Amino acid sequence: MFLDFIIRGGTIVTADDTYRADIGITRGKIKAIGVDLAGAESLDASGKLVMPGGIDVHTHLDMPFGGTVTADDWTSGTTAAACGGTTTVIDFAIQDFGSSLRKGVDAWFARAEGKAAIDYSFHTIVRDLKESHLKEMDELVSEGITTFKLFMAYPGVFMVDDATIFQAMLRTRDNGGLICMHAENGGVIDILVKRALAEGHTEPKWHALTRPMSAEAEATRRAIALAEMAGVPVYIVHLSAGDAMEEVRRARERGLPVFAETCPQYLFLSYEDYEKPGFEGAKYVMSPPLRPKGNEERLWNGLSTDALQAVSTDHCSFCMKEQKEIGKGDFSKIPNGAPGIENRLMLLHEGGVNRGRITMNRFVDLVSTRPAKIFGLYPRKGSITVGADADLVLWDKERKWTISAKTHRMKVDYNPYEGTEVTGVPDTVLLRGKVVVRDQKHVGSTTDGAFVRREAGTARTPEGSPR
Amino acid sequence: MFLDFIIRGGTIVTADDTYRADIGITRGKIKAIGVDLAGAESLDASGKLVMPGGIDVHTHLDMPFGGTVTADDWTSGTTAAACGGTTTVIDFAIQDFGSSLRKGVDAWFARAEGKAAIDYSFHTIVRDLKESHLKEMDELVSEGITTFKLFMAYPGVFMVDDATIFQAMLRTRDNGGLICMHAENGGVIDILVKRALAEGHTEPKWHALTRPMSAEAEATRRAIALAEMAGVPVYIVHLSAGDAMEEVRRARERGLPVFAETCPQYLFLSYEDYEKPGFEGAKYVMSPPLRPKGNEERLWNGLSTDALQAVSTDHCSFCMKEQKEIGKGDFSKIPNGAPGIENRLMLLHEGGVNRGRITMNRFVDLVSTRPAKIFGLYPRKGSITVGADADLVLWDKERKWTISAKTHRMKVDYNPYEGTEVTGVPDTVLLRGKVVVRDQKHVGSTTDGAFVRREAGTARTPEGSPR
Amino acid sequence: MFLDFIIRGGTIVTADDTYRADIGITRGKIKAIGVDLAGAESLDASGKLVMPGGIDVHTHLDMPFGGTVTADDWTSGTTAAACGGTTTVIDFAIQDFGSSLRKGVDAWFARAEGKAAIDYSFHTIVRDLKESHLKEMDELVSEGITTFKLFMAYPGVFMVDDATIFQAMLRTRDNGGLICMHAENGGVIDILVKRALAEGHTEPKWHALTRPMSAEAEATRRAIALAEMAGVPVYIVHLSAGDAMEEVRRARERGLPVFAETCPQYLFLSYEDYEKPGFEGAKYVMSPPLRPKGNEERLWNGLSTDALQAVSTDHCSFCMKEQKEIGKGDFSKIPNGAPGIENRLMLLHEGGVNRGRITMNRFVDLVSTRPAKIFGLYPRKGSITVGADADLVLWDKERKWTISAKTHRMKVDYNPYEGTEVTGVPDTVLLRGKVVVRDQKHVGSTTDGAFVRREAGTARTPEGSPR
Amino acid sequence: MFLDFIIRGGTIVTADDTYRADIGITRGKIKAIGVDLAGAESLDASGKLVMPGGIDVHTHLDMPFGGTVTADDWTSGTTAAACGGTTTVIDFAIQDFGSSLRKGVDAWFARAEGKAAIDYSFHTIVRDLKESHLKEMDELVSEGITTFKLFMAYPGVFMVDDATIFQAMLRTRDNGGLICMHAENGGVIDILVKRALAEGHTEPKWHALTRPMSAEAEATRRAIALAEMAGVPVYIVHLSAGDAMEEVRRARERGLPVFAETCPQYLFLSYEDYEKPGFEGAKYVMSPPLRPKGNEERLWNGLSTDALQAVSTDHCSFCMKEQKEIGKGDFSKIPNGAPGIENRLMLLHEGGVNRGRITMNRFVDLVSTRPAKIFGLYPRKGSITVGADADLVLWDKERKWTISAKTHRMKVDYNPYEGTEVTGVPDTVLLRGKVVVRDQKHVGSTTDGAFVRREAGTARTPEGSPR
Repeated sequence: MFLDFIIRGGTIVTADDTYRADIGITRGKIKAIGVDLAGAESLDASGKLVMPGGIDVHTHLDMPFGGTVTADDWTSGTTAAACGGTTTVIDFAIQDFGSSLRKGVDAWFARAEGKAAIDYSFHTIVRDLKESHLKEMDELVSEGITTFKLFMAYPGVFMVDDATIFQAMLRTRDNGGLICMHAENGGVIDILVKRALAEGHTEPKWHALTRPMSAEAEATRRAIALAEMAGVPVYIVHLSAGDAMEEVRRARERGLPVFAETCPQYLFLSYEDYEKPGFEGAKYVMSPPLRPKGNEERLWNGLSTDALQAVSTDHCSFCMKEQKEIGKGDFSKIPNGAPGIENRLMLLHEGGVNRGRITMNRFVDLVSTRPAKIFGLYPRKGSITVGADADLVLWDKERKWTISAKTHRMKVDYNPYEGTEVTGVPDTVLLRGKVVVRDQKHVGSTTDGAFVRREAGTARTPEGSPR
Repeated sequence: MFLDFIIRGGTIVTADDTYRADIGITRGKIKAIGVDLAGAESLDASGKLVMPGGIDVHTHLDMPFGGTVTADDWTSGTTAAACGGTTTVIDFAIQDFGSSLRKGVDAWFARAEGKAAIDYSFHTIVRDLKESHLKEMDELVSEGITTFKLFMAYPGVFMVDDATIFQAMLRTRDNGGLICMHAENGGVIDILVKRALAEGHTEPKWHALTRPMSAEAEATRRAIALAEMAGVPVYIVHLSAGDAMEEVRRARERGLPVFAETCPQYLFLSYEDYEKPGFEGAKYVMSPPLRPKGNEERLWNGLSTDALQAVSTDHCSFCMKEQKEIGKGDFSKIPNGAPGIENRLMLLHEGGVNRGRITMNRFVDLVSTRPAKIFGLYPRKGSITVGADADLVLWDKERKWTISAKTHRMKVDYNPYEGTEVTGVPDTVLLRGKVVVRDQKHVGSTTDGAFVRREAGTARTPEGSPR
Repeated sequence: MFLDFIIRGGTIVTADDTYRADIGITRGKIKAIGVDLAGAESLDASGKLVMPGGIDVHTHLDMPFGGTVTADDWTSGTTAAACGGTTTVIDFAIQDFGSSLRKGVDAWFARAEGKAAIDYSFHTIVRDLKESHLKEMDELVSEGITTFKLFMAYPGVFMVDDATIFQAMLRTRDNGGLICMHAENGGVIDILVKRALAEGHTEPKWHALTRPMSAEAEATRRAIALAEMAGVPVYIVHLSAGDAMEEVRRARERGLPVFAETCPQYLFLSYEDYEKPGFEGAKYVMSPPLRPKGNEERLWNGLSTDALQAVSTDHCSFCMKEQKEIGKGDFSKIPNGAPGIENRLMLLHEGGVNRGRITMNRFVDLVSTRPAKIFGLYPRKGSITVGADADLVLWDKERKWTISAKTHRMKVDYNPYEGTEVTGVPDTVLLRGKVVVRDQKHVGSTTDGAFVRREAGTARTPEGSPR
Repeated sequence: MFLDFIIRGGTIVTADDTYRADIGITRGKIKAIGVDLAGAESLDASGKLVMPGGIDVHTHLDMPFGGTVTADDWTSGTTAAACGGTTTVIDFAIQDFGSSLRKGVDAWFARAEGKAAIDYSFHTIVRDLKESHLKEMDELVSEGITTFKLFMAYPGVFMVDDATIFQAMLRTRDNGGLICMHAENGGVIDILVKRALAEGHTEPKWHALTRPMSAEAEATRRAIALAEMAGVPVYIVHLSAGDAMEEVRRARERGLPVFAETCPQYLFLSYEDYEKPGFEGAKYVMSPPLRPKGNEERLWNGLSTDALQAVSTDHCSFCMKEQKEIGKGDFSKIPNGAPGIENRLMLLHEGGVNRGRITMNRFVDLVSTRPAKIFGLYPRKGSITVGADADLVLWDKERKWTISAKTHRMKVDYNPYEGTEVTGVPDTVLLRGKVVVRDQKHVGSTTDGAFVRREAGTARTPEGSPR
């Protein structure tokens, strides 16, 4: 056995194991793991941890929104992702009202093609679900676009009713797809927003004050009940409230295949940030909103006890200048979203591993392995096993870094974690065997990335695997 | 102090106390409780328990339904109620689509007037909630019709969306009203019903198989969340599923003013009854449906531990002949409902007190005192205190009775509890000091009953009282 | 009916009811409740609330402890109690090692006789449980001394092992007695105390730091399990930790007759008080210790949701001077206990009723009715019903009071609530129809009190009544 | 890289991963995992699953008990284990009263040496804990015998009090050891046994009737509280009752390093087996006893949701003839224990994997990887990674087997699972690279096994790893 390329002398860290070995790669795939492997080329990984590339299953790149478009397109977004140790993203392709799912997906293919520094896939956002769309769901699943996002919030824009959700879920029972849910009670929020504006409350903090934790916990519970009645798994996106998490936990205790991700913003920031002077709170306007201090400890507990299974970013960047400013006199007009695609791994490593809340193995599970399993990328992605894509990160546990908009690779004019110091960064990143980041610098091209077909029928067990 | 009438020598049983004393009545009200009271007339209650008259807060009398009308009108229904120890009912006045709440209430006044053997009040069923209806809610509350029922089930007929529910709740925060909720997820049920029929399932049991317990638990949780966010109490009607009850319990543990009633059918009957031969299962077609064996023990636990606060009947009688038969080839067409107004106290006494599950005091609380408090009838009703209406039941703990359609006073051609033997019946019943039932026979008239104005602002504490 | 004495024009408040009526008393007992009662004498109660006298089921009067004796004897203790609205106490009679239970009870009779301003009974503290003592338990129960306290803490002094507890419980299954439990894991605490002292920690706060909340929660859970296996009720004394309370709640949810009291100190004071300068923390040295800020809100929740059923004082007063000082160089030598017998009602009223956490009815239940039921004093005590002892408090909701050692009637040189201002005090107090406190001054004698025989077989249901 | 031995063409299954690859072995260790590996010898694994060898952390081999000794010694026990797919056992070395821990361990070394077909280690059972024993604990930990078992049951034989347990736990905080707990309340059980015998109950079923589930749940909760207060992990052995499991779950939800194993008997048998005619119930006399039908489903839920982390056997075999018969007239004299060392994997695979309750990966985790981590054997054992011992099982998922005493390799005259048919057996088993079982036949020798030093400081996180 002669190999193209050897990662030599590193400590391999997976979701379950930690051990010293070389990794041998041929044609972009892992062919051998062993001692003293021989190959044409090699890379010295001694002193580094070698982990599977990060997978960010929740991003919004080049997304149009109310006359503007997100600050990051695929080029900047995926380059930043790569520098942060992420080698695959799953972005959201949006169905237009009255249009087919297919058209939405085609539009997103067009946005990504030739501009992706890393591998990618899509979820389809369903706004409208007629019989023809149910058939399209089947087709998309068979083409490896296996997941669909539905909204319980944003009436008139994205929100669908329970009957629609239940129909979609029943369809995934047959076609092996998976429903991802934005779980907030949009009906309640809509009324609270209107009342707040009518009472003259326009500042950014009212975004949070009109989106109570209960509205999220309720919707989470409802999504779970609908999934249980349909006999399917469900994945809750961007879970922010501890009470919502407890609903996920209760379901999982009963053995149900219910999953939830949280995001770095909910682990590091809090409601108090909205009370910063002037319009600065707008930086943090996202949905669900940041929650009061204390809530983040509940989420950290969830990460360490498997009440939460993934950390994604919900990266959706808008500049303060000209974009967030749209909502200056009216919080409900502030474009929703915040950046994060570049900082996910270093933040979770800092707050989780360095603070003793989670082990390094659990870290790998949360940022890579478990999302890969749930979303049908596994074992091709999210795993260091023979046969897998050689998407690898050489993690330098000693290296320090200060997060800042001045140095980040994202094309947005602020960073919510400005000034945060971390120890532990992705030094080198490989995408299918090719070094795309070296010494924290992008050395690949924006044509490196390719679309990845995903497997259907996953997420049928609490671990996220097929039944 | 000279009194009109003395109840002599009985053992008074209230929600909290048990003691021997005479009760002195003047002009229909309790004026004194003491030893050796003197009065113009007296009734010997020795050997009997004297309790406040039963209050049934959930009945449907003379209710039109799909071209037919319930078997019991006010005359038969309230006479049967009186014989069963109930001296007050709260019936549901239905708003017509596109019409005012007022008209619904007026129609119900017309139905009841001159035909009520006992006192009565109304809840208003709201199907349609425009700005004008919100104002009508205020007016009705100020007139003592303080409660409103909303449906989370029956799309296209009664179901309202979460925004509507939330609006109604916010209104009761200001006007002191109370929302009563039919908590089942109508969207899911509707789809399940259509699928079952499409698959050729037409028998009565499919009524139950298309209304899962989860659909009730989910809606209960949602109703509670909406109420919590609105800052108001909520009352769950006809709770049937143990899982739904646990949602009520969790809310109450947190100190929220959340209440639920169950009904005798859910305590004594079960899903297995739907599997009786032929069309007999239709007797039990009601919503929510009967639940599988084992569930009833959870409800009994709830009655003894205050996870449930009331037992009402949801009396809604349709004869098997010509009425239930409408749904012979299609379970979804069977008129929903079952009789019970006459048998509530004796059933709960038998299954609860005689079997050692609840004390006699708790029995009184569940059938009279707590509903009186929650619904603003207290202390006029539901209480044996000076100043209260002399609505009294002389309960004979030794007397045996066999429940049967042959002897019941309801005008419906079957009894769901046919053949059930109980020990303990209401021997004598007084309505505002007048004997209306003697020796289990109605001796009053159907003009004895009067409309009762209710107080607003109740149900603000877990006990059901104003704050 | 002619009555000796009328309480005229007050608003009667019981655990369940609130209404206007006169109360007629003859020979110390309530004979009538009604409008315009006539009698030889009367007392104007207009503008006052009339409630049953308080019952303090946990006091230590004239108790020898390590060479000293509590600051309050029966004279000062019961006089202070009366002024605070308490008309019955249950004190703890201690068995000496190697001696009979009877001797302990006799010694306590000798202490109390002729020195009690209010009625009283005893619990027996059991330190040693041989076959002969089991027989004595039966005898004491038949004499109306129905309750026994066991300790899971204080090894070598009071602690008994699980087998002993279980034996005692099995005996109460047959004789109708009730076990009261000091629930802290003494084995763990003993080790922690020794380690702290060995490490040179001697300040008062180490009393708390060596008695973790977990040690209480564990023991509470264990006491409940032993009681459940024995098939008997159990009463947890002086519950302080929220986690312990949750164990009580879980048991009650399952319908078990498990009860717990908390005390004002745990509702108003906190661990932070131990950190006061110098030796001042010694004022608060009691077991269990005060808990960290935040815990008290959990207990208030328990009081409003019936996770807790009673508020007693654990009154056990030692002066700072000469008594608490014994432990100046060693926290483990500080006499354990704090005063409170005089301030219980006003404190609970202030923190509970005035702050909107509990209703006035719930207040009455917690300080009088429920303890009366659980401990077999009811309906003679704890109730305003015909036949009950006329132990009554005329509560003035408007009157202000400042708690202070300068004015209190207890014979102890500090008050843990020094300077606390309350609105609402017992203006007038009657013991069996005799006015013993008028205008907040004791006008009775210290021979007014009498021993009360209690009923066995109570506390068999969650409400505290016999089955 | 040239390898001694290749396992070719199998599907590797670990706790987390499933993939096709060859495994290359040199000098008993895994040196490479890859495609088309070359080596001196090879074994065809195509069509087989290749998993790490099973680890049974709870066995009693050659154990003296009341004048007799277990039916299986090390020769028969470890041979049977090997045939069942188990390559490492941890057996219990018992301290004699008044003697050192060391002597107990030495005695067990003597029993095992030269008679072990597989690798082994010991836990030390501590009956007596003086200062000198605490020091011995440190020494044993440093020698790789890192775990200590304490009993909360069997007063006078094994039971230690809470103070002793707490002392032992505090010691493991410093020395990195781990306490294993037999969690049943011995005080209660002892009384129940005496009462049952006094009432003339002697049949085997009374073994179960005197050991209630509550006695286990209570002790489990207590063990967890003691561990939490000591700041250490704890491992509950042979958990049988669903209620006990919920205590483990609650602790783990809080992020505590609390672990529990269950055993096949609690998953496959039930209380009803004690009611078999005659003395047959004696086969199932073990502690804790079998629980009522329905309990096993709760344990299966725990296995799939990580409320339980391991499946061991508590193998402790006594023949019916002459051994179990000792207790013919007195259930309390029946030797406690049942065989299972040979059938663990096939039973769990059948009930778990084949019935769809757990995945194959979870199966591997429960029988091998997680126990290896918790007990400090990992990564040497329990793992298929480079550097690990080549303890491997080639699992044939298609092969059928019928469990029977006629064919089993254990030296005991009955099998509790007699007649159970399974699909899926260990076809070939390797111990450190040597084939010891081929085609379900033992082909190794009883000198193959060696003592394994274990790592200290494990089990500090919920996953079972060091912190």
